[in-house]
Amino acid sequence: MNSANAVIARRAGSVDGLVELAAADMAGVDALILDRMQSPVSIIPALADHIIVAGGKRLRPLLTVAAARLTGSRDDAGLKLAAAVEFIHTATLLHDDVVDGSGLRRGKVAAHLIWGAPSSVLVGDFLFARAFELMVETGSMKAMEILARAARIIAEGEVLQLSRAHDVNLSQETYLEIISAKTAELFAAAAEAGAVSAGGSAAQSAALRAYGLNLGLAFQLSDDALDYGGTTETLGKNAGDDFREGKATLPLLFAIARTGAREREFWERVIGRQEQVEGDFRRARDLIVSVGALEAALDMAAGYADAAKRALDIFPASPLRDGLEALADFAVSRRA
Amino acid sequence: MNSANAVIARRAGSVDGLVELAAADMAGVDALILDRMQSPVSIIPALADHIIVAGGKRLRPLLTVAAARLTGSRDDAGLKLAAAVEFIHTATLLHDDVVDGSGLRRGKVAAHLIWGAPSSVLVGDFLFARAFELMVETGSMKAMEILARAARIIAEGEVLQLSRAHDVNLSQETYLEIISAKTAELFAAAAEAGAVSAGGSAAQSAALRAYGLNLGLAFQLSDDALDYGGTTETLGKNAGDDFREGKATLPLLFAIARTGAREREFWERVIGRQEQVEGDFRRARDLIVSVGALEAALDMAAGYADAAKRALDIFPASPLRDGLEALADFAVSRRA
Repeated sequence: MNSANAVIARRAGSVDGLVELAAADMAGVDALILDRMQSPVSIIPALADHIIVAGGKRLRPLLTVAAARLTGSRDDAGLKLAAAVEFIHTATLLHDDVVDGSGLRRGKVAAHLIWGAPSSVLVGDFLFARAFELMVETGSMKAMEILARAARIIAEGEVLQLSRAHDVNLSQETYLEIISAKTAELFAAAAEAGAVSAGGSAAQSAALRAYGLNLGLAFQLSDDALDYGGTTETLGKNAGDDFREGKATLPLLFAIARTGAREREFWERVIGRQEQVEGDFRRARDLIVSVGALEAALDMAAGYADAAKRALDIFPASPLRDGLEALADFAVSRRA
Repeated sequence: MNSANAVIARRAGSVDGLVELAAADMAGVDALILDRMQSPVSIIPALADHIIVAGGKRLRPLLTVAAARLTGSRDDAGLKLAAAVEFIHTATLLHDDVVDGSGLRRGKVAAHLIWGAPSSVLVGDFLFARAFELMVETGSMKAMEILARAARIIAEGEVLQLSRAHDVNLSQETYLEIISAKTAELFAAAAEAGAVSAGGSAAQSAALRAYGLNLGLAFQLSDDALDYGGTTETLGKNAGDDFREGKATLPLLFAIARTGAREREFWERVIGRQEQVEGDFRRARDLIVSVGALEAALDMAAGYADAAKRALDIFPASPLRDGLEALADFAVSRRA
C-alpha cells in the first residue's frame, strides 16, 4: 500500500446495510429495468444489457427507494421512479463515454468500442426517453419536474466541463459547480423524487435532496481523488483517466496551487497543452500526494459526507437512516 | 430542368396559408424557443442558436399550434408543447448529424463540425431535457406521454436504420417501419399533442395523429426522392448524401428490384460494400429515374399526402383545415 492509498483508507462505512434493507425494492427495480430496456430493435437490449445489467452499484435508484421508505411509503410508488433514475444515469454514461472516448466502464470495455459511437448515442437517447415514459406511468408531475430539471442540469454540467477541460486556471468554485451539476444533481433528484413519490412533506423532500446533493459531492470528490490514489481493478475504470484526458479535478487544482511557479510549466504542458510522455502520470501523482493535495480533497469530501448525514437529522433514528448514514461514510472510505 | 425534376414538380401545394394563419402563435413559440434555449453555459445558446434560430421551417411546432386551434383552443396552451416539439426535433437533428457525420444542415455547416461532436451530443441532451421541462409547465400528463413515447420511438427508428444501413436486401416494409419511427412519429405526436392541449375529443386527437403520421411519411418519402432528384441549394443538405452514406431509401430499393440481376453487382458495390467512385451517384440517379423508381416513390408519397388530407374530414371546412390540406400537398410538391 502506498501513501496515497493509506490516505484514502482512513474512514469506515458500508453500502451493505442499505442494500439489505432495500433488497426487495431493488429486486423490483431490477425487474422493471430489464423489462423496460427491451425493444424489437435488437441492438438496444444488447447494448443496454452490456452496461446496465452487467454492473454498477445502482446507488441512485437505491437512494430513490430508500428515500421513499424513509418518508413512510407503504407501496411500490418509488420503484418506477428509481428505474427511471437509473435509465437517466445510464444514458449519461453512454454519452459521456462517447464524449470522453473512454475505454473502460464498470470494469468492461465501453459500449461505444463494441457497437460504435452512433449506437451508444442513440441507445442513450432511447433510455432517456424510456425514463420519461416510466415517470408518466407514476402520474407524478412533481417527480417529472425534479428529474427533467436534473437531466437538464447534468447536460449543462457536462458542457461546462468540456468547455473548461485542460484549464489549469480553473477555480475551485467552478470545479464544484461542474461536479454539482454533472454528478450531485442526480443524487439529489433521485432522493427528492423518492420522497415526493411517498407523499413526503416539503421539509422531508428538502432534507433528502440535501442528503443526496452532499452525498453526490462526496462521491465525486472521492472518485476524483481515487483517479490519483486507486488502481484500475478497484475503480472499474482506468486509474489516471482524468489525468490523461486533462480533466482539471480538485486534487490536481490543489496541487497546481501548492506547487506554484516551480511546477507551472509541468502542469501547463501535461494538462494545458496535453503533451504527455511516459512517467508524467506518476510524477503528477507524486506531486499531488506530497503537497497534501490528495488529503485536502479527501477532507473536503469528508465534509460533504458529514453534511449529508446531518441533513437526515429531521428523521427519527431507524435502520434505514443508519443505512443512509453508513452510505455517506462509504462514499469517502472506498479503498484503492 | 431534367426529367427527375419534372417528376417532382407535378403537384401544387403551399405552406404559406398555414404559416399566415398561425403567425401569432408561431411568434409566441419562437419567443419561447429563444427564452428556453438560454443557459449560463455559453456554448449551449451559441450552438442552439446556430441550428434552431437560423433555419428550419418549424413544421412540427406549426402542426402542434394548428392542431390546437383546429380543435378549438382559445388560449396559448399549445405554445409550450410546440416549443417542446421543436426542441425534441432539434436534439435528434444534432445527434443524427453526429451519427451520420453529415456536413450540412439547414444549408449551414453542421454544428458538430464547428463545436465538435461532444458538444453536439450534450447540447442535444440539454434540449431534450428542456423539452420535458416545458411539458411539465403545461401540466398535461397526456401530452407528456405522447411526446415521451414519440422520443423513444424516434430513437428506435434511428437504431434500426443504423443497423440496416448498406442493406441492399432491405424490404419495403422495413423501410416504411424506419421512416414511420424516425420521422412520421414526431409529426403524429406533434399534431396529437396539440389536440390534447386544447381538450380535443378522442376522435379529434386520433384524426390529427393520423394526419401527422401520413404527412410525415409523405415528407420523408419526398425527401428521400429529392436526394436523387434535387440540388444542394434547394435541399439545404447535400444532394446525394443518402447515396454516399449508403442509406437504402425507397427510390433505391425500387431501382434495385427493377434493375434485377443486370445491376446487382453495381448496387452491392456502391451500397453494400460502400466502394464508390466518381460518377456512381450519377449512374444510380439515372437508373432510378429511367426505371421509374423515382416516380413510384413519389406516387407513394402522394398516396400518404391524400391519406393525411382525408384524416381531416371529421373537421368542418375552415381556412385552418384548408391550410393543413395545402401543407399535405406541399409535402409532395417541393421543387428540386
